[in-house]
Amino acid sequence: MFEHISVNQNLIEMEYAVRGKISQRAAELEQEGQITIACNIGNPQALGQKPITFYRQVLSLLEYPNSITRERELSRHLNTLELSVDSYSDTVLNYAEDMLEKMKTGTGAYTESKGPLFIREAIAEFIDKRDDSDAGSGNGSDPESIFLTNGASDAARRILEILISDKSDGIMIPIPQYPLYSATIKRCGGTQVNYFLDEDSDWSVTSEILSESYDNAEKSEINIKAIVVINPGNPTGSILDEESIGLILDFAEKHDLAIIADEVYQDNLYGGSFTSFAKERGTRNILLFSLHSTSKGFHGECGHRGGYVEIRSNPEVNKSGIKLMDIFLKQASVSLCSNTIGQCLTYMMATPPEKGTNAFALYASEKTSILTDLEEKASMIIAAFKKMEGVKCFGRTGAMYLFPRIDHIPEGTNDFDYCMALLEETGLCTVNGEGFGQREGTNHLRIAFLPPITQLQEVLPQWIAFHNDYISA
Amino acid sequence: MFEHISVNQNLIEMEYAVRGKISQRAAELEQEGQITIACNIGNPQALGQKPITFYRQVLSLLEYPNSITRERELSRHLNTLELSVDSYSDTVLNYAEDMLEKMKTGTGAYTESKGPLFIREAIAEFIDKRDDSDAGSGNGSDPESIFLTNGASDAARRILEILISDKSDGIMIPIPQYPLYSATIKRCGGTQVNYFLDEDSDWSVTSEILSESYDNAEKSEINIKAIVVINPGNPTGSILDEESIGLILDFAEKHDLAIIADEVYQDNLYGGSFTSFAKERGTRNILLFSLHSTSKGFHGECGHRGGYVEIRSNPEVNKSGIKLMDIFLKQASVSLCSNTIGQCLTYMMATPPEKGTNAFALYASEKTSILTDLEEKASMIIAAFKKMEGVKCFGRTGAMYLFPRIDHIPEGTNDFDYCMALLEETGLCTVNGEGFGQREGTNHLRIAFLPPITQLQEVLPQWIAFHNDYISA
Repeated sequence: MFEHISVNQNLIEMEYAVRGKISQRAAELEQEGQITIACNIGNPQALGQKPITFYRQVLSLLEYPNSITRERELSRHLNTLELSVDSYSDTVLNYAEDMLEKMKTGTGAYTESKGPLFIREAIAEFIDKRDDSDAGSGNGSDPESIFLTNGASDAARRILEILISDKSDGIMIPIPQYPLYSATIKRCGGTQVNYFLDEDSDWSVTSEILSESYDNAEKSEINIKAIVVINPGNPTGSILDEESIGLILDFAEKHDLAIIADEVYQDNLYGGSFTSFAKERGTRNILLFSLHSTSKGFHGECGHRGGYVEIRSNPEVNKSGIKLMDIFLKQASVSLCSNTIGQCLTYMMATPPEKGTNAFALYASEKTSILTDLEEKASMIIAAFKKMEGVKCFGRTGAMYLFPRIDHIPEGTNDFDYCMALLEETGLCTVNGEGFGQREGTNHLRIAFLPPITQLQEVLPQWIAFHNDYISA
Repeated sequence: MFEHISVNQNLIEMEYAVRGKISQRAAELEQEGQITIACNIGNPQALGQKPITFYRQVLSLLEYPNSITRERELSRHLNTLELSVDSYSDTVLNYAEDMLEKMKTGTGAYTESKGPLFIREAIAEFIDKRDDSDAGSGNGSDPESIFLTNGASDAARRILEILISDKSDGIMIPIPQYPLYSATIKRCGGTQVNYFLDEDSDWSVTSEILSESYDNAEKSEINIKAIVVINPGNPTGSILDEESIGLILDFAEKHDLAIIADEVYQDNLYGGSFTSFAKERGTRNILLFSLHSTSKGFHGECGHRGGYVEIRSNPEVNKSGIKLMDIFLKQASVSLCSNTIGQCLTYMMATPPEKGTNAFALYASEKTSILTDLEEKASMIIAAFKKMEGVKCFGRTGAMYLFPRIDHIPEGTNDFDYCMALLEETGLCTVNGEGFGQREGTNHLRIAFLPPITQLQEVLPQWIAFHNDYISA
């Protein structure tokens, strides 16, 4: 009987605001028949973003391979049939057929624990192309160091589980941060070590910030193992330049820290440019984990839980003779493998249809349209902030979030009260700043800029009215 | 740099033989161009088992919903087209359309952390129908106590993570067991407490066996939190009768233990009958976790990572005021949700096509054919054992495995050497008994009875020859 059974204290203490009290209240309101807008989470398709047709057509063929034969037979008749739905192009049919051949056992079998080799090879090529790097020259990506995962959250959990032994092990995380990190550090029994991004300088990081955080932890006899960097930033949207990446690499090298680079928003730039940690690391002797996912970018395939972690480690053996890849492989093998459809999406992310093929034009136009849309929505919300007294928004607008500071919150209330009232008043579900961490005494919220433009046109004026009313209360 | 970074000792010590050295050697042989037969793992589609058409047609439509419209339009022309591949029946089209309506946001969005309510409701109904139970009468299944997971491995990990705080927390597991449990207990930092199934009585369990194990652990000041039961058994194939389930329930009640019932092989019976722990528990005050999966049974959809855990807990609050469901929900929310395609398969497992629909006949015949095939393959291998000197196989042939004892292994060698030699000689990849735990001094192996019948016809005589040669060496 449960009354006599105790529960792991780390799980009790763990917090995850993105799906916390405010979003639970939103679910209640929905059940009561009210309309809410789920801006608490980066979940584009829940807010109407259409999937990329190419991805879904290929997945649909992979799930029922007989349909490839059928589509080929049908294609002879299509001119005469006048269907309202487009047919599968040759590119799509060939792509799916090629994948099935490489997969050998289709979508229904466990794969290698790491994920199929052909997918890891495609990811390695994708990384090298992105970074202009080359495995031959020693600074490239190695398929054997890539592990496919159920989204990037799974990757973060795996890494932290391996790095953290107990409370004396510390992991540096930015503040504000995506609470996956604080929650997973807590769950693994480690110690969270904060470094505070400089809000007024667009949430930038400096050597002083990092050193101060490190020195304080050292005084408390915390053994710092790794530093987490989220670039582009979640919730800040800030994009790191090469100089910032360089100073983090220097810092990690100096203190023997691993770097956990959460790079899942690398396609969400809106004008800025992305530099990967892998590229800047080059052949330096720094242990680097880079996370990517099919949930974000223009892909938006959150539900399919595709993602990977790439590990750069040189040497691969530590003082105790432990081979890092062996531990990762053993850990992966206990879960057997990540889900195959997420794996297939990750492959498609790495090898999109090529220019000149008959699927390319549609793919390219859908991609552009999604990214342009996101940028416009961000601009609309930023414009609304300008009409709210005491609201300031820093950062360079990467990722999918805005994280404005709300300066004039009435005494005795805080950003949680504000977000809860905003939800009740307008249906907008956001997450208050406390959920990500923030400097004491400041108030923020995170909003995912994902609702349809027409919905924003309707709700933003309501928010402005709510805000100016709330702060003058 | 990694040489100065230490790794969690639990992960170093963790072992998982199902994908251990023997299977790694098989992968090497494959790369050298040799044919191996992967009987080390319950992965039916990797060995040629065809997926259930109904499942895959529905998944294919869910991934690309436009195709539902297209198929409806096509259906008007199909008589004249003479396609070699069957079309989607009305049942399939309606089923997929109905699911999409219930899902609201398709396969691409994160769902509720627990999984969509309509799927959890379907699972609760499926359980009540299976157990002849009824939520109204207090012994039924509650959709709010069901969590969808990435396969049952994910469920086991979640439960153990919540129950285990440190080394003083013990989890009782059967020996032999599926090494997911030993590995996950180690990973979570707990203590594995063995209870030895009685091989000569078909791997049965008795009150004495349980008490002896419990008492020994208590003497070592281990605080036992839960007992794991795998029914039908993996690797033993043994099926528990109501009496055995009853005595485990009594034991758990007496000692305030949770029961973790791994029931993923509930459809793999070959003549025996399955009784669930939930059914026998009724309204007793025993905390029960029941695991199920779409990977096994006749479904065999391992790669899709579908599964669930159902929790029966009454009361739901422990002495410290902790609500168990709150902890499970928070834990689930950090991973956002399990993969949607696995969720959809779990829904289809719970609500197969109804008798009288035009998809039913094919579904039913595929189901019967897979299960009949499995039974025949098990019989073939058992017949081969009878031709091997000193090989005895106990158990009632449930699940997907046989776990024969090999008595006459030459001195100085053990079952690992035997399995490795068997692989080199015949290509058969099995797992040695040590990987599951066994009484000291005994030797076993586990073989998944999944290869095509023609392949078994070829390899079994080779195995017999190998065996009789090996033991006389």
